[in-house]
Amino acid sequence: MKWKRSERLVDMTSQLLESPHELIPLTFFSERYQAAKSSISEDLTIVKETFEEKGTGKLVTVSGAAGGVKFIPKMVESDVREVMSLLMEKLGHSDRLLPGGYLFMTDLLGNPRIMDRVGKVFASAYAETDIDVIMTVATKGIPIAHAIARHLNVPVVVVRRDSKVTEGPTVSINYVSGSTRRIQTMVLSKRSMQSGRKVLITDDFMKAGGTMLGMKSLLEEFGCELAGIAVLVESDHAEEVLVDNYLSLVKLHAVNEKNGTIELEEGNYFAEGGK
Amino acid sequence: MKWKRSERLVDMTSQLLESPHELIPLTFFSERYQAAKSSISEDLTIVKETFEEKGTGKLVTVSGAAGGVKFIPKMVESDVREVMSLLMEKLGHSDRLLPGGYLFMTDLLGNPRIMDRVGKVFASAYAETDIDVIMTVATKGIPIAHAIARHLNVPVVVVRRDSKVTEGPTVSINYVSGSTRRIQTMVLSKRSMQSGRKVLITDDFMKAGGTMLGMKSLLEEFGCELAGIAVLVESDHAEEVLVDNYLSLVKLHAVNEKNGTIELEEGNYFAEGGK
Repeated sequence: MKWKRSERLVDMTSQLLESPHELIPLTFFSERYQAAKSSISEDLTIVKETFEEKGTGKLVTVSGAAGGVKFIPKMVESDVREVMSLLMEKLGHSDRLLPGGYLFMTDLLGNPRIMDRVGKVFASAYAETDIDVIMTVATKGIPIAHAIARHLNVPVVVVRRDSKVTEGPTVSINYVSGSTRRIQTMVLSKRSMQSGRKVLITDDFMKAGGTMLGMKSLLEEFGCELAGIAVLVESDHAEEVLVDNYLSLVKLHAVNEKNGTIELEEGNYFAEGGK
Repeated sequence: MKWKRSERLVDMTSQLLESPHELIPLTFFSERYQAAKSSISEDLTIVKETFEEKGTGKLVTVSGAAGGVKFIPKMVESDVREVMSLLMEKLGHSDRLLPGGYLFMTDLLGNPRIMDRVGKVFASAYAETDIDVIMTVATKGIPIAHAIARHLNVPVVVVRRDSKVTEGPTVSINYVSGSTRRIQTMVLSKRSMQSGRKVLITDDFMKAGGTMLGMKSLLEEFGCELAGIAVLVESDHAEEVLVDNYLSLVKLHAVNEKNGTIELEEGNYFAEGGK
């Protein structure tokens, strides 16, 4: 079957969006569509310009024998700010207040469309960073980790509080929770991660950063390197945060349990201090 | 700016793929591209035919004032079988055997590309079923639940083994684990789910189905209705499975810990007995 340009464009767009951060050789397209490489190149120029125009992302062309084209999800600043505003609007309702000044966020973490956008926001920030693995701690960080991972095309490893038979041999560490000062345990399956990996850590909420510091120790135990930290909501905290170079989308400034008010502001995503 | 057809096709494909199971009014496209509705209809015909030709999914057009177009992810049988074969190939390696006849699957559950395809397989099966919510139990079912949810455009609720302050008030039930016969507890945040919802339950592994039965009791406690059960791997079991109408992709037939062999076969996805 001979493809028309219009059909090629539709299918090419699907293929590229399905395979972010993956180098697709031009021969893949020329064989799939029975078309000359020159036609494929023209098609890709149209896709590239449209993606850039609408803020879908970038198409990077790699020339040479091992060359091809790669789709890099990349949100424009206005879209990122829209996601931040959406999160602040949703999180600002007083019925989210829980005892102890916690915020109920489970519904947002269960919303696949919001998670997808949050994932793309962080994947955009780390698009040029060398990242091999995304690490999070069970349970609430998992949707965020997978959303980022899908846009960066890297695997997710999940740290647990307890070890299970289905994980095989594990490595465990003890760490001090930053806010409660309690000693806690974290375990990670030995098979989950090889040494030398560059790891992006993520979680839904960060107070003093004790859990993040715990994950950092754990990845060092595996001979891996910290490549970045992505947090959905960080909370203002009296003491200094235990980790540097993190990115957050929302900052929980203050909660007043008596009046039921929640003060939120933008996280450090665009701030100088961030990343 | 006036859009060319080629640019419209690229952007329209992105928009549709990003919003599965969501009705997009034609006016959205005609305003976005400053084009007549007749041109938009022609564009959509090209997208529809290409999606069907390559097994990307279906475009459903709803006419009338409240009408529009909806993208329904729908995998063709050959692609589903490819996913099943891939899973069986990956799961068949003897180094996956764990004590007690368990299989190490954590790496597959952490692979976003594989999870995305698994999600699309199940979303295809339940594309015509009325589903409002996807329910799973922490921790390993979460990536599958989110992958299905993204293709069906419905929220995920996560049942936990313990209750946490960040969940707010919870409902808990006790259930008997099918294989170990131990009494266990499951909790779900009260705010997670309203009554009357139609719920698809999913998990990574099912032996006798005790956990599934527990989730079924829990959703009844919320006044909700079971709409389906999706399992990645089911394991052959001496006793009868405790739930009906489930779909599985892979069946673990037998493991031999001494020889290190794992016997796998296709799950019931295409079988008469399934769903």
